[in-house]
Amino acid sequence: MLNVIEFNENELKFLDQTKLPFEEFYIVTDNYLRIAEAIEKLEVRGAPLIGIAAAYAVCLGYRKFPTEFKVIIKRLKKTRPTAVNLFWALERMQNVYNNIEGSDKDIIFNELKKEAINIHLEDEESCNLIAENGLKVFELNSRVLTHCNSGSLATGGIGTALGVISNAYKKGFVEFVFVDETRPLLQGSRLTAFELEKNGIPFSINIDSSAGYLMQKGVVDIVITGADRIAKNGDSANKIGTYSLAVLANYHKIPFYIAAPFSTIDMNIDSGEKIIIEERESAEINALKNVQLTKNSYLVTSPAFDVTPANLIDGIITDRGTFKYPYKFNAKN
Amino acid sequence: MLNVIEFNENELKFLDQTKLPFEEFYIVTDNYLRIAEAIEKLEVRGAPLIGIAAAYAVCLGYRKFPTEFKVIIKRLKKTRPTAVNLFWALERMQNVYNNIEGSDKDIIFNELKKEAINIHLEDEESCNLIAENGLKVFELNSRVLTHCNSGSLATGGIGTALGVISNAYKKGFVEFVFVDETRPLLQGSRLTAFELEKNGIPFSINIDSSAGYLMQKGVVDIVITGADRIAKNGDSANKIGTYSLAVLANYHKIPFYIAAPFSTIDMNIDSGEKIIIEERESAEINALKNVQLTKNSYLVTSPAFDVTPANLIDGIITDRGTFKYPYKFNAKN
Repeated sequence: MLNVIEFNENELKFLDQTKLPFEEFYIVTDNYLRIAEAIEKLEVRGAPLIGIAAAYAVCLGYRKFPTEFKVIIKRLKKTRPTAVNLFWALERMQNVYNNIEGSDKDIIFNELKKEAINIHLEDEESCNLIAENGLKVFELNSRVLTHCNSGSLATGGIGTALGVISNAYKKGFVEFVFVDETRPLLQGSRLTAFELEKNGIPFSINIDSSAGYLMQKGVVDIVITGADRIAKNGDSANKIGTYSLAVLANYHKIPFYIAAPFSTIDMNIDSGEKIIIEERESAEINALKNVQLTKNSYLVTSPAFDVTPANLIDGIITDRGTFKYPYKFNAKN
Repeated sequence: MLNVIEFNENELKFLDQTKLPFEEFYIVTDNYLRIAEAIEKLEVRGAPLIGIAAAYAVCLGYRKFPTEFKVIIKRLKKTRPTAVNLFWALERMQNVYNNIEGSDKDIIFNELKKEAINIHLEDEESCNLIAENGLKVFELNSRVLTHCNSGSLATGGIGTALGVISNAYKKGFVEFVFVDETRPLLQGSRLTAFELEKNGIPFSINIDSSAGYLMQKGVVDIVITGADRIAKNGDSANKIGTYSLAVLANYHKIPFYIAAPFSTIDMNIDSGEKIIIEERESAEINALKNVQLTKNSYLVTSPAFDVTPANLIDGIITDRGTFKYPYKFNAKN
């Protein structure tokens, strides 16, 4: 497996994802501010991975500035204001700290370290369980289409949707992967392609708008993507373009699955209508890698996510099993 | 209207479309080889416009090299091997030449010039008729979504689908245009956006994969695109991504129209299955404007077109009226 993030007491080492797929460059730092910057600059990305990196940053920050715990948490919270996993991880670190505040500095550092490692290991284990549960959705030699990146580069383990695909490939259930390039930020053609190449899995990249063509040609057997947030009824928010894929899969009678940790299910949200869709900056569409594609003055409509209604999703693969429509998640599952 | 191409006896002046939307740079030349190069480099593009440019190139070529007619035609034929309009225009020029071969040089030049101007004027007139016929498909204040570029920059007139949209805007039937950026070559965000701005029509650019999201939100009232080739049964080949749009429009019960000259209908092809889809080079996906997006070694699936089956098309707007499904085109229409 790809070594995406590695912590020891003195430093955090992580892959700079902005340089992928061209260069595998690792950033090594003992400075929590550098990690905050890395999250902001998308050098570290992917909801679970951001949470893990932030937890490790808290440890390194505390070791250098034991009297500045509040400042450290505040700085890290500011990095990606919409990342749910980030707040959740920082809250866990905060709780540990609150419980032993006033103790010896080394004791506090050790407890923080333990919690950060737990967050990491739990995510790794969750990925493995998702991948195992996902095996059952395949027929032999399936050709899978996926969107965005939901692999090692986004998690603390083998990934969610891409973890399912990689595991299924190893066991002979997957033959080929079609990778949506995933405009505007190209997580598919840059990151998913990089991971598939590393794992020796046959794939090809296609522009997002040719997914329908591929389905029409009969070369796609199943579609699997990750999810950023899932409502109580199964409506799933994920990278923009996922909804179009679900409609297209439905039209072509191709199974459409979501793979995500059970923790992605937000039992406080009844349906997808309550999920607010973040609008991204026009510069992401009008320019790419500092190259101007079209005029910045042109108005852009650029939603970051879309919501796929539950009835278009054949199953949601989680670490607590695969759920089927109509979705009834039990918090105690 | 935008001045895209202009001919006089001595030279051809045309807009260099590769510099759009940043710069309105005109190439002026009396050299037919320079025009051939312009077609190859996509400085001149759009099926009808290529035919027009090639016809004018024949005139200029003949005037300088009256004994080299065959060579001129051969060179121009080589520029875009799959462009139907190119061959059709060159055939018309060849026929004129064949009929008066051996006549005085000036007489031949004049006849060639007349034919080239006719090709141009006929296309202009065809665009106007399409735009007029297209008016009937709109309700008042429609919000239209379109894909690729099918405007002045692709034709000898106001365009096909974009001509319909511009004319309908003028008459109050169109309120707003959603422009698919149209990966890989961005004809939407570069060229269609440029034309809409020129015509003062409100628009925004969106990535291709967010078309489904926009339809789901209820902000798209109608979808109109051009077509490169239409089979006898109405199956229509157009820029990759058109088929996905048609499926999405169908799912959301949004009318989906094609606008194209009647000459685009190929009565020799029974259905879309017979239309061969050209595969483009991976470099178009893996790089953009000489910037490497991902590794060139990654396999790419890159069809240039897709075929939308007739049953997903609510109507085909032509210069000979708007046809409805099930399509029965009469060559004598």
